[in-house]
Amino acid sequence: MQSLWLENQALSLRDVPRPDKPGEALIRVRLSGICGTDLELLRGYYPFTGVLGHEFVGEVVSILESNESLRRNQPGQENSDSTNWIGKRVVGEINVVCGVCEQCLHGRPTHCEQRSVLGIANRDGVHAEYTTLPLANLHIVPASIPDEAAVFTEPLAAALEILQQVHIQPADRVLLVGAGRLGQLIAQTLALTGCDLHVLARHARQKALLQSRQIQIISEDEIQPRRWDVVVEATGSPSGFEVARRALRPRGTLVLKSTYRGDMMVRWSPFVVDEITLLGSRCGPFAPALRLLESGQVDPTILIAGRYPLTNALWTMTAAQQPGMLKVLLKP
Amino acid sequence: MQSLWLENQALSLRDVPRPDKPGEALIRVRLSGICGTDLELLRGYYPFTGVLGHEFVGEVVSILESNESLRRNQPGQENSDSTNWIGKRVVGEINVVCGVCEQCLHGRPTHCEQRSVLGIANRDGVHAEYTTLPLANLHIVPASIPDEAAVFTEPLAAALEILQQVHIQPADRVLLVGAGRLGQLIAQTLALTGCDLHVLARHARQKALLQSRQIQIISEDEIQPRRWDVVVEATGSPSGFEVARRALRPRGTLVLKSTYRGDMMVRWSPFVVDEITLLGSRCGPFAPALRLLESGQVDPTILIAGRYPLTNALWTMTAAQQPGMLKVLLKP
Repeated sequence: MQSLWLENQALSLRDVPRPDKPGEALIRVRLSGICGTDLELLRGYYPFTGVLGHEFVGEVVSILESNESLRRNQPGQENSDSTNWIGKRVVGEINVVCGVCEQCLHGRPTHCEQRSVLGIANRDGVHAEYTTLPLANLHIVPASIPDEAAVFTEPLAAALEILQQVHIQPADRVLLVGAGRLGQLIAQTLALTGCDLHVLARHARQKALLQSRQIQIISEDEIQPRRWDVVVEATGSPSGFEVARRALRPRGTLVLKSTYRGDMMVRWSPFVVDEITLLGSRCGPFAPALRLLESGQVDPTILIAGRYPLTNALWTMTAAQQPGMLKVLLKP
Repeated sequence: MQSLWLENQALSLRDVPRPDKPGEALIRVRLSGICGTDLELLRGYYPFTGVLGHEFVGEVVSILESNESLRRNQPGQENSDSTNWIGKRVVGEINVVCGVCEQCLHGRPTHCEQRSVLGIANRDGVHAEYTTLPLANLHIVPASIPDEAAVFTEPLAAALEILQQVHIQPADRVLLVGAGRLGQLIAQTLALTGCDLHVLARHARQKALLQSRQIQIISEDEIQPRRWDVVVEATGSPSGFEVARRALRPRGTLVLKSTYRGDMMVRWSPFVVDEITLLGSRCGPFAPALRLLESGQVDPTILIAGRYPLTNALWTMTAAQQPGMLKVLLKP
């Protein structure tokens, strides 16, 4: 099958065998999304060789031949073998977990010590005609959600992880620094809380999307220092971090919601003096993401900058790296 | 009056006028304690000129002539003017606040934007015969608490700030890195939660004190990585920070409980991937500190390394800087 292959920080379109993981669902990819992490992997953020991509919506083709014990090790979820999965339209959680390590047993499966991660670590991803995942990772997509929205389930879940971790109160002043692919989804989910949300966006297109959702934008020189209860840093850059840090009030919470390359110089003393909470945030819950897509309270489709055939993936990955570019989808 | 004076990172014994702050209580210092922050100020952690010291127990001598408006601006606390303060044995909160700024009005008086801090910022401290504080800052010391214990109220409150900020569950595995002056008090307060507490201590005397309280000590090579629910960093050093970071489990909480000089290189990506919470911690609540001293559930007096007359303060400050030195008290 055709796939977008990453090796030694170089991409190629490669014909690879259909994936075959015993006990897992074989999924025909209907649509996949290019994520900032894909681009970071390309830049060497983390060494990965294989099929790139982890945002997708697909269709279960078959359940691959399994040995029972493998299946029994999956953490108990609502997905049971009694479901007739064949033909179902699905999205999938990207962490494939052991179910028996300390993290899994303590209710932190996304932090499984043995995990493989779809298109990111030790597991081929979804910029391909087919992919596989354990049934425990799959969520059926309600019929009312089109593929173009369902493909955003994974990043929308990641955005919701912030609300899973931090109690954002309706009266809170919340600043979001960065309004790219993930930033836009974060903005839409934070807005649901009724909080006093302002977003620092760099590009005209980003600003226009926020304004279309009645989300307030703010310029850097309008950001009052030491005023914001919660600040979400979604740029991954030292300058974005510095803006976020300055804006935060004493005892405020700074959420790190991006990939950060390399080391950064940090002065800890203000963190102690101001009793700052700093919080890293990664993968989030799929079920509420699907609920918000179904209800239409979040609309990620306004982020779509283009939709291209997988055969054009090399060109598309280049285009996706342009500053301010929003979501690019691939159709196998 | 005699005082220990800091100016341009140099100490001197200096005869200064008795402090006179309208509306404040004039307090005769009975005993003061040398804190790590005193030593950091001496090293230039923060520019300060004046009488050093903020840990004390004293006796109210008089209420200084005031204008009523000044007194009315003090944040409402249990201390009312109807109390007969004269002759009362007291300890005092070190942040003197405006009561009207955004931080004060939002219930964060220790973060008052206009604050002066006893012996630390814009206010003479307590290594002297007399000091002053607003009545709102004072707490009467129960008769059963001797001066030698009461003088620890401020650092004990700072230790309790951790329990004020973090819900430490009895089943939590908690690692404390550092067992100096503040570390010992942190260890005693954390132990009250029933948590599985281990302390990394460097010096034999520190270890002996912990063992006398049945607190487990641990060596660096015994610390299992990625295992501890909460890690408290109380060394202020990059190496201590690194030990703390490695020990913490995914989604764990790392409490920064020290003064940190200068900048440190930090790799943020593990904070995001492991969804770490990092939390700065400073001044804490006095009332529970006094309750724990009164009940005897915490005993800081085992930390006392020596008690010297204020006239020996210069020599004493040098002695207090020796590695592993515990609490040194000054008697005016």
